[in-house]
Amino acid sequence: FRLALIQLHVSAVKSENLQRACGLVREASAKGAKVVALPECFNSPYGTQYFKEYAEEIPGESTQKLSEVAKECSIYLIGGRSIPEEDGGKLYNTCTVFGPDGAMLAKHRKVHLFDINVPGKIQFKESETLSPGNNFSMFDTPYCKVGLGICYDMRFAEMAQIYSQKGCQLLIYPGAFNLTTGPAHWELLQRGRAVDNQVYVAAVSPARDEKASYVAWG
Amino acid sequence: FRLALIQLHVSAVKSENLQRACGLVREASAKGAKVVALPECFNSPYGTQYFKEYAEEIPGESTQKLSEVAKECSIYLIGGRSIPEEDGGKLYNTCTVFGPDGAMLAKHRKVHLFDINVPGKIQFKESETLSPGNNFSMFDTPYCKVGLGICYDMRFAEMAQIYSQKGCQLLIYPGAFNLTTGPAHWELLQRGRAVDNQVYVAAVSPARDEKASYVAWG
Repeated sequence: FRLALIQLHVSAVKSENLQRACGLVREASAKGAKVVALPECFNSPYGTQYFKEYAEEIPGESTQKLSEVAKECSIYLIGGRSIPEEDGGKLYNTCTVFGPDGAMLAKHRKVHLFDINVPGKIQFKESETLSPGNNFSMFDTPYCKVGLGICYDMRFAEMAQIYSQKGCQLLIYPGAFNLTTGPAHWELLQRGRAVDNQVYVAAVSPARDEKASYVAWG
Repeated sequence: FRLALIQLHVSAVKSENLQRACGLVREASAKGAKVVALPECFNSPYGTQYFKEYAEEIPGESTQKLSEVAKECSIYLIGGRSIPEEDGGKLYNTCTVFGPDGAMLAKHRKVHLFDINVPGKIQFKESETLSPGNNFSMFDTPYCKVGLGICYDMRFAEMAQIYSQKGCQLLIYPGAFNLTTGPAHWELLQRGRAVDNQVYVAAVSPARDEKASYVAWG
């Protein structure tokens, strides 16, 4: 089957991002993709200062759109971080998956929040504004079973090992690595997880925007 | 501290190999190395057909020499696969470690035997002639605790994870990868084990000899 990873430009205007994403999903589907993945933060800028402002509940505006386009194209759609998700007063970094009938198949909340402090280079703490997920997220397709992680989740070998033991043959990590740790880790971790567990590994990042407050690597 | 990895030419003459190895160990020590590692099969050609012929018991000719030179140089010496080891009618792929006083600190028998069959490229089965080890092998130095694996042991993430959990900060893998899987795995596995477990990883291979029946990658 054909898997499409959509690396798109992300602006500060949510409705624009959603429209652009849906257009690219349709294009991928038209070219034969059966499973399509969007990157982390495909609908909002990345940054702890933005999470609250762009947060939605699930279901909400973004996930509604994802469900519709998945059904329209009859594909499996991995919605990157479709939100930040707001739930019970807490914020999560959450990725949803919709099936060909538009139903939600999985909702993954990023388990491993990313706190980084490389003096003079990059410093922020997701854990200041976000709460961690505590679940493994898998879904079945007619092609294979798929395991989901978000970004920094990929750094943890045990998560991939458990997905593999549970029968996943494909791991998908929507991500938004940065220019400091990205060059050292983005490719290495994907290849390592694939070789160690004998699974396919795919990761998908926003397009690099050198003018953004957070510049994505990938 | 300084770690030396000795990548040497290995011939079919064991006494020559031992002499060359000891000479290079002395040279490394003279340049300040406190821990010195020899590659897998530093004293015999690699190949299932050679294991029986070159096998020794421990202690034996090769390990005696390693003990002497470790003491002479007052270093920690990781003896690659100092043998094949013969014990109770079985053969093992075994790596010994000698301390600055000449005492044996660890004896690691390769846990994961390497059977490979890539049609048209490379095919052999270590398990036809060798028996597997069933132990983790660690030793203490004044610098850090060290975990030992041999070659294909490096392919198994769990082994490195357990060494790391047990406090090892350096993992050493004497190896002799091949030209088929070596390019895909040798560097990736070392970097992956290091990043995943936040330890130092060193691997050491024989020098490449394009005329040998088994050509080492590394």
